[in-house]
Amino acid sequence: MREIKGGITAPLGFVAAGMHVGIKKPPHPDLALVVSAREGPIAGVFTRNRVAAAPVQLDRQRLRRGMGRAILINSGNANACTGAQGLADAEEVAALVAALIGMDPRAVFLGSTGIIGQPLPMPCLRRGIPALVNRLRANGGKEAARAILTTDTRTKEVALSARIGGRRVTVGGMAKGAGMIHPDMATMLAYLTTDVAIERTTLQRALVAAVNPSFNCISVDGDTSTNDSVLCLANGMAGNPVVRAGSAAAAAFQGLLGEACRVLAMEVCRDGEGATKLVQVNVVGARTQTAARQVAKTVATSTLVKAALFGEDANWGRIMAAIGRAGVSVDPAKIGLSCDGVRIVKAGVGLGRPAERRLARIMQRREFGVTIHLGQGPGRARLWTTDLSYDYLRLNASYRS
Amino acid sequence: MREIKGGITAPLGFVAAGMHVGIKKPPHPDLALVVSAREGPIAGVFTRNRVAAAPVQLDRQRLRRGMGRAILINSGNANACTGAQGLADAEEVAALVAALIGMDPRAVFLGSTGIIGQPLPMPCLRRGIPALVNRLRANGGKEAARAILTTDTRTKEVALSARIGGRRVTVGGMAKGAGMIHPDMATMLAYLTTDVAIERTTLQRALVAAVNPSFNCISVDGDTSTNDSVLCLANGMAGNPVVRAGSAAAAAFQGLLGEACRVLAMEVCRDGEGATKLVQVNVVGARTQTAARQVAKTVATSTLVKAALFGEDANWGRIMAAIGRAGVSVDPAKIGLSCDGVRIVKAGVGLGRPAERRLARIMQRREFGVTIHLGQGPGRARLWTTDLSYDYLRLNASYRS
Repeated sequence: MREIKGGITAPLGFVAAGMHVGIKKPPHPDLALVVSAREGPIAGVFTRNRVAAAPVQLDRQRLRRGMGRAILINSGNANACTGAQGLADAEEVAALVAALIGMDPRAVFLGSTGIIGQPLPMPCLRRGIPALVNRLRANGGKEAARAILTTDTRTKEVALSARIGGRRVTVGGMAKGAGMIHPDMATMLAYLTTDVAIERTTLQRALVAAVNPSFNCISVDGDTSTNDSVLCLANGMAGNPVVRAGSAAAAAFQGLLGEACRVLAMEVCRDGEGATKLVQVNVVGARTQTAARQVAKTVATSTLVKAALFGEDANWGRIMAAIGRAGVSVDPAKIGLSCDGVRIVKAGVGLGRPAERRLARIMQRREFGVTIHLGQGPGRARLWTTDLSYDYLRLNASYRS
Repeated sequence: MREIKGGITAPLGFVAAGMHVGIKKPPHPDLALVVSAREGPIAGVFTRNRVAAAPVQLDRQRLRRGMGRAILINSGNANACTGAQGLADAEEVAALVAALIGMDPRAVFLGSTGIIGQPLPMPCLRRGIPALVNRLRANGGKEAARAILTTDTRTKEVALSARIGGRRVTVGGMAKGAGMIHPDMATMLAYLTTDVAIERTTLQRALVAAVNPSFNCISVDGDTSTNDSVLCLANGMAGNPVVRAGSAAAAAFQGLLGEACRVLAMEVCRDGEGATKLVQVNVVGARTQTAARQVAKTVATSTLVKAALFGEDANWGRIMAAIGRAGVSVDPAKIGLSCDGVRIVKAGVGLGRPAERRLARIMQRREFGVTIHLGQGPGRARLWTTDLSYDYLRLNASYRS
């Protein structure tokens, strides 16, 4: 497997574009389009939020057919809580893209991110989409990656290739950061393209398997905003024998897709709003994997733990308290804590001032790991979180103004 | 029922004191003691955190006997994650209080709040407790209420009286604010005294019933730090016929105790760290009460909702998104939102700019209510939350330094 350039347009047969059409204030780009030279299987994983945005509802329905060719994504407006009008608007923009390209409208998928509860500014979209289609080009990945951002400070792109079935197969991708510390409330969008030839169900299974330890493990609950979506479109142009479930080729493709998702998820987390640190929270020795995940999630989302990370305050008691309230049966007398290899707590009791001083020094790093030992069984989990900073509040106290 | 003065020493037969003994930096008071003239039934509700502090472990065990006479509370040190030494220290200070007063040591209850993971500074306590016992007096309530505070900006006291069984019965109380926006991680301590004559089991049931809609409804999960405790000590000195479960007197006492807990809980919430607003979150029309509570809790603890409250940003979409991810089956097309009587969302769709402008004006109030209509059934819930401010972060990024 090797890293290459080109982002979402790195695989064979994909073009993309991004530009400002007037949803955001000029000159911020706010509309992106990715198009494959031919239709192919598409896989999707969406928010579990009951209040799903119009584009999510439309994509979910189209995913039943399971074939895609174009993905149109706008930033600046979530098209969520917009009722029947929101769905009609989504249908209309998809139909417009299909008509301009000359393709089946059912193969157009959508993504939206931005303010909830405002109708899509349809005049801007009707005017902008033809211009956007005209800009489509094979090196348009960067431009598209830029147009899907909101409060992100940089684009998130990935392109990886490997030999599968005797052919060079590439996976490209772009993501729109949660832009927030809790992706569960933000919009996390990620799009992946690949030229692999693959069965539809195998692609869907591979995407689910790739998303769980990556996007679903950053600051936790990455799957629950009104708009969260991860789509993967495969056009088969690499010319490999079709990848089928259970084969060596499927495993190789899983490795490629999994790594692409991991790279994008880390980038999303690093660029969390106001984040100054990226912290890996590991739990080992839990009774079950579910218990491990529950403990990791409680620690990773604790406001007090995040505030201590920001302040570089070696207040490990907050981690202990979070473990204790995670709703998992733990034995306090067995709990151990370590940070980048340094033991801080053993058998539930702190190891004193020297250990705390070493902890305080480690906490000054931009990236480090905390490991929680529960001493109860084989369950383990790994999540990534960020700190909670003044900048987070500044950005979120008046996101709309 | 009427409000009177005197706080925790308002009921007949209670004395209290508070002073600095050296746990905190001078001159901050850090040790409080409340003593009844005679032993009586005591009820307790404690943290559900698996990592329970030593005083909680000791109190839980003593509550099996169910009789109390004294409560010793220190601030500045949580005596949590301190292992066997922490428990031995707790036993020792309780024995010292009992010896000085001349009472059964099993009737001494303890409370601690402060840093987790540091051993109790026993020399300060051994030296300070005799002086504290000497200071006990009938108007010592205020002094005791001051000594249990940490980052609270003011004392929280209450005293209410009513006629029960032909006698004047008084309930007094003091609380130590969560001092944090999420009481689930902070230490919330509340102590109530009463001169009512009451059966032990009836007192315990009354306390549980009083705590659920008060302390357990402020910013949610008020019951899950390592040290959270609510104790209620009854000495029977009002001379009323003993209150038994199911009687009119029990209902009257329940009203008195419930109101005392509500007053203290509101005070704790208002004085949350950095809090500039107190917001009531009401959910109506849920399928069940559990579902209503789950939705209210998700909204009330959402970092993004709290940041919007601080910024007075009429970003109601964040409330909708929180409702949708609450893990409850809701129908987005039925959801309504209103704020102090002004409708903002109807049938899942926003009512436009004029409604938002009215919402923005309401959000400038120091206290207001948000009502979420789910349109599904009879379930309702009411919680209180605060905003998330810069001051919260300032206080929590380096609580220990």
